[in-house]
Amino acid sequence: MSKLELLEEHVVFDGTQYKYRHDSHTLGCPMTFSLFLPNKEKFSNPPLFWWLSGLTCTDDNFTQKSGAQKAAARLGVAMIMPDTSPRGEHVADSEDWDLGQGAGFYLNATEQPWEPHYKMYDYITKELSAIAHDQFQLTGPEFISGHSMGGHGALVVGLRNAERFHSISAFAPIVNPSQVPWGIKAFNAYLGSDKEKWREWDAAELLKNYTGKKIPVLIDQGDADSFYEKQLQPSKLAAVAEEKNYPLTVRMQKGHDHSYYTIASFIEEHLEFHLSQLANNQ
Amino acid sequence: MSKLELLEEHVVFDGTQYKYRHDSHTLGCPMTFSLFLPNKEKFSNPPLFWWLSGLTCTDDNFTQKSGAQKAAARLGVAMIMPDTSPRGEHVADSEDWDLGQGAGFYLNATEQPWEPHYKMYDYITKELSAIAHDQFQLTGPEFISGHSMGGHGALVVGLRNAERFHSISAFAPIVNPSQVPWGIKAFNAYLGSDKEKWREWDAAELLKNYTGKKIPVLIDQGDADSFYEKQLQPSKLAAVAEEKNYPLTVRMQKGHDHSYYTIASFIEEHLEFHLSQLANNQ
Repeated sequence: MSKLELLEEHVVFDGTQYKYRHDSHTLGCPMTFSLFLPNKEKFSNPPLFWWLSGLTCTDDNFTQKSGAQKAAARLGVAMIMPDTSPRGEHVADSEDWDLGQGAGFYLNATEQPWEPHYKMYDYITKELSAIAHDQFQLTGPEFISGHSMGGHGALVVGLRNAERFHSISAFAPIVNPSQVPWGIKAFNAYLGSDKEKWREWDAAELLKNYTGKKIPVLIDQGDADSFYEKQLQPSKLAAVAEEKNYPLTVRMQKGHDHSYYTIASFIEEHLEFHLSQLANNQ
Repeated sequence: MSKLELLEEHVVFDGTQYKYRHDSHTLGCPMTFSLFLPNKEKFSNPPLFWWLSGLTCTDDNFTQKSGAQKAAARLGVAMIMPDTSPRGEHVADSEDWDLGQGAGFYLNATEQPWEPHYKMYDYITKELSAIAHDQFQLTGPEFISGHSMGGHGALVVGLRNAERFHSISAFAPIVNPSQVPWGIKAFNAYLGSDKEKWREWDAAELLKNYTGKKIPVLIDQGDADSFYEKQLQPSKLAAVAEEKNYPLTVRMQKGHDHSYYTIASFIEEHLEFHLSQLANNQ
């Protein structure tokens, strides 16, 4: 079992917000993550909501700015917030804010100098999942969501593990990273120039050839988001979904931008979406 | 009229969150403040909620971490968040986090080197009030609230302007700064060693000799707040209020600490408290 160091513990609503540090064997560095648990007496086996953050973020951004704990406490949902990349002086980095530390893209890097540490996909789907399951007894149903780079992560992790996650949601996700500047830069660095290898880390490409379980997807995209046209373009994913008859909903949110204020505005609806899908399945 | 520079504008829920900068003639430096306005079509003349933040904070802490916009948008309340002190290289400062920049204590300093800039009381009650009134047409009823040093500020500004503010609330306020380390240090620096001069900036002292309008006060204090015993002690204010038959309620909140998670947990109830007092008066 991974040894966890408790860094913070706060009562919020009638749940508790935690922050932990542990030595990740997958990433080869110490990592922090945050965890919200609803009232144990009311909710003995809560579903688990995974939140993947965007470029430059840590586990703190969603924890401190989304206000999600209010709805999660009311609805009885546990929430786990990983960091966005490996960290530390011995971990490869870039001077750019959209590559390296804070920009792990939720994939397993194959190229140097990134390869030994940048394995966020394995970290989340295996190591941190085992911690949630074994050390916090979070054995309930799971959903996944995220923002921007983390929306990409939620789509890719969710679609590749559709037997595990009941539903996916995202705010302003990078739906087709192989075709936009953020993704092209990151994939060239982490995966190399062979674009065939990029397909398994690209939601739009994954969906084109998808034969797995059709878990529902909800996307919110602000129409005042300055990255909308150049980096995001959810209509690209919606077009593939329509062709494949895949259950995906894109909601354009008038006046909303790329900030956490948009996440705060709709996170309760996302949690309710995930729970409603669960209810439909039972 | 003060020239305002718009730094940020975000749609949040169905209101808008703004951040501005202006040159303060009261403080002799550029200042930022944040402002939330509810949907103008639904709420044409909203009441105005003043929020005063605590030591080390800026206007961003409440704006980003309290989640208050959700309730304010629903209830139709405008919110204004000043910074906590004058700022800048030419403004006196201290190496300590509890004195100087970020620690203005919402008073008018009389001592050097603080006196020319540290006039947060006048800045809030006059200059920023005039901006809210004249430049944003916020002419509705007003309430005031704050956290820790800002709870002290809300109590002092509110009690000294009880004909203007309809009610006061506070999270973990410094209720008797003349008697606790944070207050003694700040008052000695800003006001000098004559303790007679401290009384007008100390809520417990103000209440002892109070003959003004009895506007209701609500205080929330977490019992797991690490500053509770040494710096806060709301029971001191409650004892004076009881003696004077002053309408003050102190709620001890089990397990809650000094963080913004406590503010997030109860801010909706504070807004509802202020509105209910207003309804009682009408």
